[in-house]
Amino acid sequence: MDRREVVRGTVRRMEPIKAAAAQLAPELFDRDRTIEKACSAIAEAGRNGARLVAFPESFVPGYPYFAFLLAPTQINRYVATLYREAVQVPSPATDALCAAAKSAECYVVMGMHERRGGTLYNAQLFIGPDGAILGCRRKLMPTSHERMIWGRGDGSDLSVYKTELGTLGGLICYEHANALFRYALQVQGEQIHVATWPGGMPGINSIIDAAARSYAFEAQAFVINVTSVLTEASLAALEPELRDQLKVGGGYSGILTPRGDWLAGPQLEGEALLYAELDFARIDAIKSIVDSAGHYARPDVVQLKLNRKPQSPLDDGST
Amino acid sequence: MDRREVVRGTVRRMEPIKAAAAQLAPELFDRDRTIEKACSAIAEAGRNGARLVAFPESFVPGYPYFAFLLAPTQINRYVATLYREAVQVPSPATDALCAAAKSAECYVVMGMHERRGGTLYNAQLFIGPDGAILGCRRKLMPTSHERMIWGRGDGSDLSVYKTELGTLGGLICYEHANALFRYALQVQGEQIHVATWPGGMPGINSIIDAAARSYAFEAQAFVINVTSVLTEASLAALEPELRDQLKVGGGYSGILTPRGDWLAGPQLEGEALLYAELDFARIDAIKSIVDSAGHYARPDVVQLKLNRKPQSPLDDGST
Amino acid sequence: MDRREVVRGTVRRMEPIKAAAAQLAPELFDRDRTIEKACSAIAEAGRNGARLVAFPESFVPGYPYFAFLLAPTQINRYVATLYREAVQVPSPATDALCAAAKSAECYVVMGMHERRGGTLYNAQLFIGPDGAILGCRRKLMPTSHERMIWGRGDGSDLSVYKTELGTLGGLICYEHANALFRYALQVQGEQIHVATWPGGMPGINSIIDAAARSYAFEAQAFVINVTSVLTEASLAALEPELRDQLKVGGGYSGILTPRGDWLAGPQLEGEALLYAELDFARIDAIKSIVDSAGHYARPDVVQLKLNRKPQSPLDDGST
Amino acid sequence: MDRREVVRGTVRRMEPIKAAAAQLAPELFDRDRTIEKACSAIAEAGRNGARLVAFPESFVPGYPYFAFLLAPTQINRYVATLYREAVQVPSPATDALCAAAKSAECYVVMGMHERRGGTLYNAQLFIGPDGAILGCRRKLMPTSHERMIWGRGDGSDLSVYKTELGTLGGLICYEHANALFRYALQVQGEQIHVATWPGGMPGINSIIDAAARSYAFEAQAFVINVTSVLTEASLAALEPELRDQLKVGGGYSGILTPRGDWLAGPQLEGEALLYAELDFARIDAIKSIVDSAGHYARPDVVQLKLNRKPQSPLDDGST
Amino acid sequence: MDRREVVRGTVRRMEPIKAAAAQLAPELFDRDRTIEKACSAIAEAGRNGARLVAFPESFVPGYPYFAFLLAPTQINRYVATLYREAVQVPSPATDALCAAAKSAECYVVMGMHERRGGTLYNAQLFIGPDGAILGCRRKLMPTSHERMIWGRGDGSDLSVYKTELGTLGGLICYEHANALFRYALQVQGEQIHVATWPGGMPGINSIIDAAARSYAFEAQAFVINVTSVLTEASLAALEPELRDQLKVGGGYSGILTPRGDWLAGPQLEGEALLYAELDFARIDAIKSIVDSAGHYARPDVVQLKLNRKPQSPLDDGST
Amino acid sequence: MDRREVVRGTVRRMEPIKAAAAQLAPELFDRDRTIEKACSAIAEAGRNGARLVAFPESFVPGYPYFAFLLAPTQINRYVATLYREAVQVPSPATDALCAAAKSAECYVVMGMHERRGGTLYNAQLFIGPDGAILGCRRKLMPTSHERMIWGRGDGSDLSVYKTELGTLGGLICYEHANALFRYALQVQGEQIHVATWPGGMPGINSIIDAAARSYAFEAQAFVINVTSVLTEASLAALEPELRDQLKVGGGYSGILTPRGDWLAGPQLEGEALLYAELDFARIDAIKSIVDSAGHYARPDVVQLKLNRKPQSPLDDGST
Repeated sequence: MDRREVVRGTVRRMEPIKAAAAQLAPELFDRDRTIEKACSAIAEAGRNGARLVAFPESFVPGYPYFAFLLAPTQINRYVATLYREAVQVPSPATDALCAAAKSAECYVVMGMHERRGGTLYNAQLFIGPDGAILGCRRKLMPTSHERMIWGRGDGSDLSVYKTELGTLGGLICYEHANALFRYALQVQGEQIHVATWPGGMPGINSIIDAAARSYAFEAQAFVINVTSVLTEASLAALEPELRDQLKVGGGYSGILTPRGDWLAGPQLEGEALLYAELDFARIDAIKSIVDSAGHYARPDVVQLKLNRKPQSPLDDGST
Repeated sequence: MDRREVVRGTVRRMEPIKAAAAQLAPELFDRDRTIEKACSAIAEAGRNGARLVAFPESFVPGYPYFAFLLAPTQINRYVATLYREAVQVPSPATDALCAAAKSAECYVVMGMHERRGGTLYNAQLFIGPDGAILGCRRKLMPTSHERMIWGRGDGSDLSVYKTELGTLGGLICYEHANALFRYALQVQGEQIHVATWPGGMPGINSIIDAAARSYAFEAQAFVINVTSVLTEASLAALEPELRDQLKVGGGYSGILTPRGDWLAGPQLEGEALLYAELDFARIDAIKSIVDSAGHYARPDVVQLKLNRKPQSPLDDGST
Repeated sequence: MDRREVVRGTVRRMEPIKAAAAQLAPELFDRDRTIEKACSAIAEAGRNGARLVAFPESFVPGYPYFAFLLAPTQINRYVATLYREAVQVPSPATDALCAAAKSAECYVVMGMHERRGGTLYNAQLFIGPDGAILGCRRKLMPTSHERMIWGRGDGSDLSVYKTELGTLGGLICYEHANALFRYALQVQGEQIHVATWPGGMPGINSIIDAAARSYAFEAQAFVINVTSVLTEASLAALEPELRDQLKVGGGYSGILTPRGDWLAGPQLEGEALLYAELDFARIDAIKSIVDSAGHYARPDVVQLKLNRKPQSPLDDGST
Repeated sequence: MDRREVVRGTVRRMEPIKAAAAQLAPELFDRDRTIEKACSAIAEAGRNGARLVAFPESFVPGYPYFAFLLAPTQINRYVATLYREAVQVPSPATDALCAAAKSAECYVVMGMHERRGGTLYNAQLFIGPDGAILGCRRKLMPTSHERMIWGRGDGSDLSVYKTELGTLGGLICYEHANALFRYALQVQGEQIHVATWPGGMPGINSIIDAAARSYAFEAQAFVINVTSVLTEASLAALEPELRDQLKVGGGYSGILTPRGDWLAGPQLEGEALLYAELDFARIDAIKSIVDSAGHYARPDVVQLKLNRKPQSPLDDGST
Repeated sequence: MDRREVVRGTVRRMEPIKAAAAQLAPELFDRDRTIEKACSAIAEAGRNGARLVAFPESFVPGYPYFAFLLAPTQINRYVATLYREAVQVPSPATDALCAAAKSAECYVVMGMHERRGGTLYNAQLFIGPDGAILGCRRKLMPTSHERMIWGRGDGSDLSVYKTELGTLGGLICYEHANALFRYALQVQGEQIHVATWPGGMPGINSIIDAAARSYAFEAQAFVINVTSVLTEASLAALEPELRDQLKVGGGYSGILTPRGDWLAGPQLEGEALLYAELDFARIDAIKSIVDSAGHYARPDVVQLKLNRKPQSPLDDGST
Repeated sequence: MDRREVVRGTVRRMEPIKAAAAQLAPELFDRDRTIEKACSAIAEAGRNGARLVAFPESFVPGYPYFAFLLAPTQINRYVATLYREAVQVPSPATDALCAAAKSAECYVVMGMHERRGGTLYNAQLFIGPDGAILGCRRKLMPTSHERMIWGRGDGSDLSVYKTELGTLGGLICYEHANALFRYALQVQGEQIHVATWPGGMPGINSIIDAAARSYAFEAQAFVINVTSVLTEASLAALEPELRDQLKVGGGYSGILTPRGDWLAGPQLEGEALLYAELDFARIDAIKSIVDSAGHYARPDVVQLKLNRKPQSPLDDGST
């Protein structure tokens, strides 16, 4: 039933798999309840046959809207809450996600605030269907107001994960604006790309649309594009000073072919699990025309110089 | 009136300039008549205040539709015609274009078949308002059937042109699918990007749309997006074996902001000179959020390694 | 009269020099008028015998108070102004400063917003008494809200300048919180350190006080500590939304001995040029007890690994 | 009741703990009576709810004031006494301290002269509430006259201790003047820093003040700052040749927030146990702005190279 | 009465002990009678309160003067005698010495020809007051003519013995000329050093003098310096061909302080047991100035690499 | 006349050379006058046929007697003078010495306070007969009170100089107490060793005597042993607080054979240039018996591990 072929270490699926984009609203600033909600969604996706389910940027415990809606002088208590509600790896929070993934026999890509030492990161956690953590990548460059909240990842955060479904990769939000970040994944043979965004900001939907479609085409990869969405409930949970500046809606989740066409979505309003079949023959079809890291590359002229080394301010010879 | 500021060798315009995208149909396979048509368009654009006018991919003497519509066994005579009608640099054909540019006081970016030695190239010719040739760049990687027609450029074809209007660059068609080609221009401070496409193939309009919008955003540059278009006249000029497989229309020209929004176009049908005002304050605005080759870059992690050296099969120490 | 000794490339002054800290308010958001004001202050300092005069952080055209007082959604027009009023190097603005330095026969260290390409930097410009630019260093890591405004410097920004007055170095604001940034200057033999801060934020005066005193002692160097200050005039120049959140005062400029004692200042209120005599015998006295990069160092145990290489996203072999 | 969270091996306390700085005078040159006095203080601190109590530099059996007050030709008999009254690890003296720590359920950091082989060291002994010795660090670089008394530690003396209270570290006196020594602790996630000083030298109080406040801020850690103090009794115990050159007082103990503000002290006169509540949320608050070894670090530019290896003049392959 | 303190495994005596240097003449070439004579001397030393008594180089059965006084062609029969009269460990000869040591409650260091397999070694046998053999070290490098008689020791012969008296070590004759051999003992904390020499060669007395005094100072250890001596009786026992080339006298035994001053001796003529009190406070006094393997070492620059492994021409994996 | 042989890079003199030990008193604390005096002595030595002349420890501008005669609290003004009167390399002071060496056609080894950056070192300057500086070695470990004055050298200070006279090396004062420092020179083939001492401290003459004789023998090298001496004039130049604690005399200069015998000196009183002929055949003679780094070494058992690398607290890849 489940047939695949391994080409130089990279899986080429012989029959489609089902993937899901979870356009959900977090329980804002509440790590444990959001984890619970995520686990339910994973279970549902699994029941519906999805082998992979992806969640929005910083889903646990929610995007820091306060950071652009309020003056920096006003955000201290929100930041303190984030430090408390951020996710550590590993911790009971990730244990719960791993258990859900295992139970649903499903790959999970979770957007979350990760805490390492005294710094928060905008991270994507990759979990396998065996409940093991594949990795946790940090956004390399937070955007504008986000730089007050998150630190920066490094070259170790530009890896892909070779799985039995194919090669998975991910980027977060405006990381898609940097051609070198994108190419770093593409050149490693990425086949399924998880693009995550905060949601709740309809003003950037046209940017998301172009980025998702363009990424699929230039990577010749499926894109699971996931945003969060604002619901009545999530607005109700916010302080008035934030709620009054936001609106219900602002989703733009969906799934795209390796040519950049929408297979599912984009879904603009409401919570939804969006599903699509990923038929890997589509990758072959487009790569026969344009294989950006293969016959369409010009390594004699342009190369990506990638420093994969984790960066630490301490060099005590232990790494 | 015309105020600008020089920032480390790069012009920052203080007031908008007008640019034009020339969605025109060539006089197919007739270099001289197409040049004539181009010169008229340049004059018209100049009269309308444009300081820059860009023409479609391989405008002189027209895109080789035959290369994908006919079996390769059937294309010899078309190819022979192309060799004859291609443009050499310099030649009376380029002299005419230069004169037109000078007369219109206008920068011109012309798509054309360039012949160098025994090889044709898919080229973009850049001409200044003083009638001088700035350069002639060759597409680095022709796509699929095009590889039967055109050779490949090299690192010398990934330059930008620092002009009094700002920094100009260009890519042709699926060169936009390669992130490294794109970044090569962006990292050099490109402010106005000329993206050219053949036109006449509505099937790839969604790809053009995503590429143009995405390029603008990731480069934080204006994009002059130019396709040709098929008209009744151009179809009439074709052999039936080609004509019957094509349709009137297939344009997608327009001009985009550095955020990826359409200022003019996209124009799907008919010949047209599309105009827009380029206000460089828009570049500042978006770059303050995402400057892909500045504060948003991570040179400690990813770098573009660019070999600018012209490639020649002969190394006699002369370069 | 002016006697000095050269010790392994480093000047050891035999008689005191006079230095000045210019606690001034900029003409907010007006580059040209602020430059004019700076030039007057340089002339005055020169007349009073100062051989070195230092100006506050981002003096030209003023600290972006808006960035922490307003919500990020409200700051676009202020940012646009900054892009316009920032200083390019070289430009007429720096030409004016250089001329003033030459005329006053004075070293000048100027805090300013520098624009390079599409990115602004929080920079310190070092000018010699011959009117030549010694260098322009960029803050390596903007702080919190500042990350919405400024990019990041690199290892080329951790140099010192060997001058006939002695070895000069500088750091900006919370760069003083990073021990490695500090030691990078100290290990290069820094003798006069220019520490700059925005001013106008009395809440951090205790941090400035500890940082300046501690720096002097650990570097065994004189510290010229310079903040701006808010005056009635500067508040009047601000939009009400900013003015209402700020108060007159907030200075903390002064000059410290290499043991960390105040020679002049700290000056809390009002504009002032603060002067002090720097007697280099004081450096010897403290270094005989603690020479952090000499007899008190333990290079067998701890070393600073400094990557001086300028970082560029483009590697085309040209550097 | 006692809640804490483990972040990548580092404890993050969820509720405050109480710490104590023991500004006491030793029974000069009498190891056993000083140990007895220390044990009483540990018991008292424990009764008052302290979970950590820190003692001054070289508390057992007292700072060698003679080394700077007398000519080196006069100090032999004092040195001989020190060799006899120094502490060995382990020994009955450390057994007594360990028992006191266990009985008080308290972490203890004890300043002492440690004897190893033929050399004395200026050491800090760390004891856990279970009565076990965590480690004993030696000052890396004695200062001036101290170099006649103490040997030098090595990279093994720059460790921190991960405990259930949080991550503890310590430095002694002018070790605080070396930025690399300081950063070595900070980069290992230090949360509570024990800074010890001799006391009895009011002339350096301004240096202690700046060092303690600056350390706290740059480490984003609590600082337990401990000095000894001279009492009538301690002066009476001294030989006249020393007593006549010293004065009662000279304390500067206290406890500081991770922002560098005094929570308790500084206490200038008299013996006292100073207490403060350490609320770890304060660490989060300041780290969200400046995390020197996290989001505020620039490992791509500056790194601390730390050689942790114990140094021995013998390499017989046994380590 | 007998108080001592253990410092990291090394004894620090709190009150002096008495040591003896046995400047005796052997019963030449007669093992058993020489052993007998040694046992008497041990008994006498014990009666006189000595806790340690040391004997000259190759005391049993005497130094091979023949090896330099006769032509090698003439020495065969002397060598044959040596093979017969050499000491094996253990054997009745060592049993006798052990019994004497036990009876006298005295440490004994005995110089002797040791026979192992087919090779003789120049050895020092260490016996405890309990009559047990502590070890038997072999001279690492015989000198000149000695190389015709003795084999060479290895790294297992550079050990020290930690005893209740303190740490004992020994070297033989020109082993003292090799700085690394010496440092090998010193770095292991040697406190009492037994230096042995043949005696009977007054020409090298100045070398012995410098070596013994220098060793004491550089080791900060007591030195028991022991030579044999030629008496009328010993000369009478020799063949004329040897006797005629030697003279009565040639002793240089004595005991030195850790500063290199003579406490007893040097004794030039006649047999004698020389005694001295070893007051370990003298070690502290000099080590406070120079501790060659402690605060005066530079392990970051120079280290002794010591291969302690016994060397065997067979490697069958058994060690 | 001047014959020599080169053996594996090391000169073996075929005929004696004359060397001189300059037992002189400096013009205390006056660099320039002391240099002048040294130059006269060099000239005189040259006239008398010396090819090498060595000066005492810290000759320029004199040993810091104050550092052990006065309490550390009293020495600041003396230290300040030392910083001013120390020698920089190169500087007019070393230029004068070089000129004198060249004029006298003589190697010169000069003891001096060297200033590098903010630290003083106890250094030996080696100058060739061509007036070029061969090197300047720093004492690796100052002794006791000296640690208040001087920093520490590193492995680059344990080099020897291969000259046409033979291989020269040097150690300063109690560096001779560390067997590894000594062996570091010996193993490099040292033939002429310059041992320098302060002079003026007759209490350590027995240590100097043993050290010099022992060194010669263990190195199988000539030793030029040089101390300063106190004269009426030098005492008169001192402040009473120092003068009253010192006495005229205290010299111990001389020249020794490679067997440790005095060829000239030791000279206890008065200024003198001591001369001796160095006949290299003496080295051969002793080395045939004991060659510590040759046939008498046991590299299979003991090796000196020498880290020659200069140590710097900065590692910026430039070395």
